[in-house]
Amino acid sequence: MYIVNEKEFVCPVAVTNDIFNDKWKLAIVWHLLDGDKRYKELHEEVYEITQKTLTVKLKELEQKQLIKREVFAEVPPKVVYSLTSIGEELRDVLNAMHAWGIFYAKSCGTIVEDTACKNKVIGN
Amino acid sequence: MYIVNEKEFVCPVAVTNDIFNDKWKLAIVWHLLDGDKRYKELHEEVYEITQKTLTVKLKELEQKQLIKREVFAEVPPKVVYSLTSIGEELRDVLNAMHAWGIFYAKSCGTIVEDTACKNKVIGN
Repeated sequence: MYIVNEKEFVCPVAVTNDIFNDKWKLAIVWHLLDGDKRYKELHEEVYEITQKTLTVKLKELEQKQLIKREVFAEVPPKVVYSLTSIGEELRDVLNAMHAWGIFYAKSCGTIVEDTACKNKVIGN
Repeated sequence: MYIVNEKEFVCPVAVTNDIFNDKWKLAIVWHLLDGDKRYKELHEEVYEITQKTLTVKLKELEQKQLIKREVFAEVPPKVVYSLTSIGEELRDVLNAMHAWGIFYAKSCGTIVEDTACKNKVIGN
Protein backbone atom coordinates (compact mmCIF):
# COMPACT_ATOMS: atom_id res chain seq x y z
CA MET A 1 0.00 0.00 0.00
CA TYR A 2 1.33 3.43 -0.98
CA ILE A 3 0.24 6.51 0.96
CA VAL A 4 1.02 9.69 -0.92
CA ASN A 5 -0.49 13.14 -0.55
CA GLU A 6 -2.96 11.70 1.99
CA LYS A 7 -4.36 9.16 -0.46
CA GLU A 8 -3.94 5.39 -0.52
CA PHE A 9 -2.96 3.42 -3.62
CA VAL A 10 -2.45 -0.28 -4.21
CA CYS A 11 -0.21 0.23 -7.25
CA PRO A 12 2.58 2.70 -8.07
CA VAL A 13 1.15 3.24 -11.56
CA ALA A 14 -1.90 4.70 -9.82
CA VAL A 15 0.36 6.96 -7.71
CA THR A 16 1.79 8.48 -10.89
CA ASN A 17 -1.54 8.58 -12.68
CA ASP A 18 -3.18 10.37 -9.77
CA ILE A 19 -0.80 13.29 -10.16
CA PHE A 20 -1.02 13.51 -13.94
CA ASN A 21 -4.66 12.70 -14.51
CA ASP A 22 -4.87 16.21 -15.82
CA LYS A 23 -4.61 17.99 -19.16
CA TRP A 24 -1.85 20.39 -18.18
CA LYS A 25 0.55 19.20 -15.52
CA LEU A 26 2.54 16.82 -17.72
CA ALA A 27 2.84 19.52 -20.39
CA ILE A 28 4.30 21.94 -17.83
CA VAL A 29 6.81 19.36 -16.59
CA TRP A 30 7.70 18.52 -20.21
CA HIS A 31 8.53 22.16 -20.94
CA LEU A 32 10.60 22.46 -17.76
CA LEU A 33 12.67 19.39 -18.66
CA ASP A 34 14.78 21.47 -21.00
CA GLY A 35 15.55 24.13 -18.42
CA ASP A 36 14.28 26.72 -15.99
CA LYS A 37 11.53 28.99 -17.27
CA ARG A 38 9.93 32.25 -16.32
CA TYR A 39 6.15 32.38 -15.97
CA LYS A 40 5.79 34.26 -19.26
CA GLU A 41 7.85 31.68 -21.16
CA LEU A 42 5.75 28.81 -19.80
CA HIS A 43 2.60 30.66 -20.75
CA GLU A 44 3.87 30.98 -24.31
CA GLU A 45 5.12 27.39 -24.57
CA VAL A 46 2.30 25.39 -22.99
CA TYR A 47 -0.11 25.37 -25.86
CA GLU A 48 -3.44 27.15 -25.21
CA ILE A 49 -3.13 27.27 -21.41
CA THR A 50 -4.77 30.30 -19.79
CA GLN A 51 -2.91 32.41 -17.24
CA LYS A 52 -5.40 31.44 -14.55
CA THR A 53 -4.97 27.70 -15.19
CA LEU A 54 -1.18 28.00 -15.42
CA THR A 55 -1.07 29.70 -12.03
CA VAL A 56 -3.22 26.98 -10.44
CA LYS A 57 -1.24 24.13 -12.00
CA LEU A 58 2.13 25.62 -11.03
CA LYS A 59 0.93 25.86 -7.45
CA GLU A 60 -0.25 22.23 -7.46
CA LEU A 61 3.06 21.03 -8.91
CA GLU A 62 4.95 23.01 -6.26
CA GLN A 63 2.81 21.53 -3.47
CA LYS A 64 3.54 18.05 -4.82
CA GLN A 65 7.29 18.83 -4.75
CA LEU A 66 7.77 18.44 -8.49
CA ILE A 67 8.75 22.03 -9.24
CA LYS A 68 10.27 24.91 -7.33
CA ARG A 69 9.59 28.61 -7.61
CA GLU A 70 12.37 31.10 -7.02
CA VAL A 71 11.90 34.83 -6.71
CA PHE A 72 14.85 37.11 -7.49
CA ALA A 73 14.87 40.55 -5.90
CA GLU A 74 15.00 42.59 -9.07
CA VAL A 75 12.79 45.38 -10.33
CA PRO A 76 10.42 44.08 -11.60
CA PRO A 77 10.80 40.87 -9.55
CA LYS A 78 12.01 37.89 -11.56
CA VAL A 79 10.20 34.60 -10.88
CA VAL A 80 11.74 31.40 -12.21
CA TYR A 81 10.26 27.88 -12.20
CA SER A 82 12.37 24.75 -12.37
CA LEU A 83 12.03 21.03 -11.70
CA THR A 84 13.04 19.60 -8.36
CA SER A 85 15.14 16.42 -8.37
CA ILE A 86 11.83 14.52 -8.02
CA GLY A 87 10.41 16.28 -11.06
CA GLU A 88 13.59 15.59 -13.04
CA GLU A 89 13.02 11.88 -12.46
CA LEU A 90 9.95 12.11 -14.71
CA ARG A 91 12.20 12.35 -17.77
CA ASP A 92 11.77 8.65 -18.63
CA VAL A 93 7.98 8.83 -18.29
CA LEU A 94 7.75 11.89 -20.53
CA ASN A 95 10.19 10.58 -23.12
CA ALA A 96 8.26 7.30 -23.31
CA MET A 97 4.99 9.22 -23.71
CA HIS A 98 6.57 11.36 -26.43
CA ALA A 99 7.79 8.31 -28.36
CA TRP A 100 4.45 6.54 -28.06
CA GLY A 101 2.54 9.67 -29.14
CA ILE A 102 4.51 9.75 -32.40
CA PHE A 103 4.04 6.00 -32.89
CA TYR A 104 0.28 6.27 -32.27
CA ALA A 105 -0.12 9.25 -34.60
CA LYS A 106 1.72 7.32 -37.34
CA SER A 107 -0.37 4.21 -36.74
CA CYS A 108 -3.83 5.69 -36.24
CA GLY A 109 -3.65 9.32 -37.32
CA THR A 110 -1.81 11.80 -39.48
CA ILE A 111 1.33 13.85 -38.96
CA VAL A 112 0.70 17.01 -40.98
CA GLU A 113 4.01 18.73 -40.46
CA ASP A 114 6.97 18.59 -38.16
CA THR A 115 6.82 20.79 -35.11
CA ALA A 116 9.58 21.93 -32.79
CA CYS A 117 8.11 19.77 -30.04
CA LYS A 118 8.27 16.64 -32.16
CA ASN A 119 12.03 16.40 -31.93
CA LYS A 120 12.36 17.45 -28.35
CA VAL A 121 13.43 14.17 -26.79
CA ILE A 122 15.77 15.11 -24.01
CA GLY A 123 18.42 13.17 -22.22
CA ASN A 124 18.00 9.84 -24.02
CA MET B 1 0.78 18.96 -36.17
CA TYR B 2 -0.64 15.58 -35.15
CA ILE B 3 -4.21 14.68 -36.05
CA VAL B 4 -5.46 11.71 -34.04
CA ASN B 5 -9.01 10.64 -33.27
CA GLU B 6 -10.25 13.82 -35.00
CA LYS B 7 -8.32 16.11 -32.68
CA GLU B 8 -5.28 18.26 -33.39
CA PHE B 9 -2.16 18.31 -31.21
CA VAL B 10 1.07 20.25 -31.45
CA CYS B 11 3.04 17.76 -29.36
CA PRO B 12 3.12 13.96 -29.16
CA VAL B 13 3.13 14.08 -25.36
CA ALA B 14 -0.32 15.66 -25.65
CA VAL B 15 -1.43 12.87 -28.01
CA THR B 16 -0.61 10.29 -25.33
CA ASN B 17 -1.97 12.40 -22.49
CA ASP B 18 -5.27 12.90 -24.31
CA ILE B 19 -5.89 9.16 -24.30
CA PHE B 20 -4.87 8.57 -20.72
CA ASN B 21 -6.16 11.70 -19.03
CA ASP B 22 -8.41 9.32 -17.15
CA LYS B 23 -8.39 7.43 -13.89
CA TRP B 24 -8.92 3.97 -15.36
CA LYS B 25 -7.59 3.42 -18.85
CA LEU B 26 -3.92 3.16 -17.92
CA ALA B 27 -4.80 0.72 -15.13
CA ILE B 28 -6.64 -1.52 -17.59
CA VAL B 29 -3.73 -1.47 -20.05
CA TRP B 30 -1.33 -2.18 -17.18
CA HIS B 31 -3.27 -5.30 -16.19
CA LEU B 32 -3.42 -6.50 -19.80
CA LEU B 33 0.35 -6.15 -20.21
CA ASP B 34 0.87 -9.48 -18.46
CA GLY B 35 -1.55 -11.36 -20.67
CA ASP B 36 -5.07 -11.72 -22.03
CA LYS B 37 -7.86 -11.39 -19.50
CA ARG B 38 -11.54 -12.17 -19.26
CA TYR B 39 -13.94 -9.41 -18.23
CA LYS B 40 -14.35 -10.92 -14.77
CA GLU B 41 -10.60 -11.07 -14.18
CA LEU B 42 -10.18 -7.42 -15.16
CA HIS B 43 -13.03 -6.46 -12.87
CA GLU B 44 -11.26 -8.19 -9.97
CA GLU B 45 -7.81 -6.80 -10.78
CA VAL B 46 -8.52 -3.16 -11.58
CA TYR B 47 -8.87 -1.82 -8.08
CA GLU B 48 -12.32 -0.42 -7.20
CA ILE B 49 -13.59 -0.12 -10.78
CA THR B 50 -17.35 -0.61 -11.19
CA GLN B 51 -18.72 -2.94 -13.87
CA LYS B 52 -20.39 -0.02 -15.64
CA THR B 53 -17.16 2.00 -15.80
CA LEU B 54 -15.11 -1.03 -16.86
CA THR B 55 -17.50 -1.68 -19.77
CA VAL B 56 -17.29 1.96 -20.92
CA LYS B 57 -13.50 2.10 -20.64
CA LEU B 58 -12.99 -1.20 -22.48
CA LYS B 59 -15.14 0.11 -25.34
CA GLU B 60 -13.13 3.36 -25.50
CA LEU B 61 -9.83 1.47 -25.53
CA GLU B 62 -11.14 -0.79 -28.30
CA GLN B 63 -12.27 2.22 -30.37
CA LYS B 64 -8.81 3.74 -29.97
CA GLN B 65 -7.25 0.47 -31.21
CA LEU B 66 -5.36 -0.24 -28.00
CA ILE B 67 -7.17 -3.44 -27.05
CA LYS B 68 -9.10 -6.13 -28.87
CA ARG B 69 -12.12 -8.11 -27.75
CA GLU B 70 -12.58 -11.69 -28.87
CA VAL B 71 -15.71 -13.75 -28.36
CA PHE B 72 -15.42 -17.53 -28.30
CA ALA B 73 -18.51 -19.54 -29.19
CA GLU B 74 -18.81 -21.48 -25.98
CA VAL B 75 -21.69 -21.91 -23.58
CA PRO B 76 -21.65 -19.53 -21.79
CA PRO B 77 -19.77 -17.36 -24.35
CA LYS B 78 -16.17 -16.60 -23.41
CA VAL B 79 -15.04 -13.01 -23.96
CA VAL B 80 -11.32 -12.26 -23.82
CA TYR B 81 -9.58 -8.88 -23.88
CA SER B 82 -6.00 -8.40 -25.00
CA LEU B 83 -3.69 -5.62 -26.10
CA THR B 84 -3.23 -4.87 -29.79
CA SER B 85 0.33 -4.34 -31.04
CA ILE B 86 -0.30 -0.60 -30.53
CA GLY B 87 -1.34 -1.20 -26.93
CA GLU B 88 1.69 -3.43 -26.36
CA GLU B 89 3.89 -0.47 -27.30
CA LEU B 90 2.76 1.26 -24.10
CA ARG B 91 4.95 -1.05 -22.03
CA ASP B 92 7.74 1.54 -21.72
CA VAL B 93 5.32 4.27 -20.65
CA LEU B 94 3.72 2.08 -18.00
CA ASN B 95 7.00 0.69 -16.68
CA ALA B 96 8.39 4.25 -16.39
CA MET B 97 5.22 5.33 -14.53
CA HIS B 98 5.51 2.30 -12.24
CA ALA B 99 9.15 3.08 -11.40
CA TRP B 100 8.42 6.76 -10.80
CA GLY B 101 5.41 5.94 -8.60
CA ILE B 102 7.63 3.89 -6.28
CA PHE B 103 10.29 6.61 -6.27
CA TYR B 104 7.71 9.30 -5.49
CA ALA B 105 6.11 7.26 -2.69
CA LYS B 106 9.56 6.71 -1.16
CA SER B 107 10.44 10.42 -1.48
CA CYS B 108 7.17 12.06 -0.46
CA GLY B 109 4.97 9.37 1.05
CA THR B 110 4.97 6.03 2.80
CA ILE B 111 5.07 2.45 1.56
CA VAL B 112 3.09 0.53 4.15
CA GLU B 113 3.51 -2.96 2.77
CA ASP B 114 4.48 -4.72 -0.42
CA THR B 115 1.68 -5.48 -2.82
CA ALA B 116 1.57 -7.88 -5.73
CA CYS B 117 1.41 -4.95 -8.10
CA LYS B 118 4.57 -3.41 -6.70
CA ASN B 119 6.83 -5.98 -8.29
CA LYS B 120 4.99 -6.29 -11.54
CA VAL B 121 7.47 -4.68 -13.89
CA ILE B 122 7.14 -6.54 -17.13
CA GLY B 123 9.47 -6.98 -20.06
CA ASN B 124 12.34 -4.89 -18.77
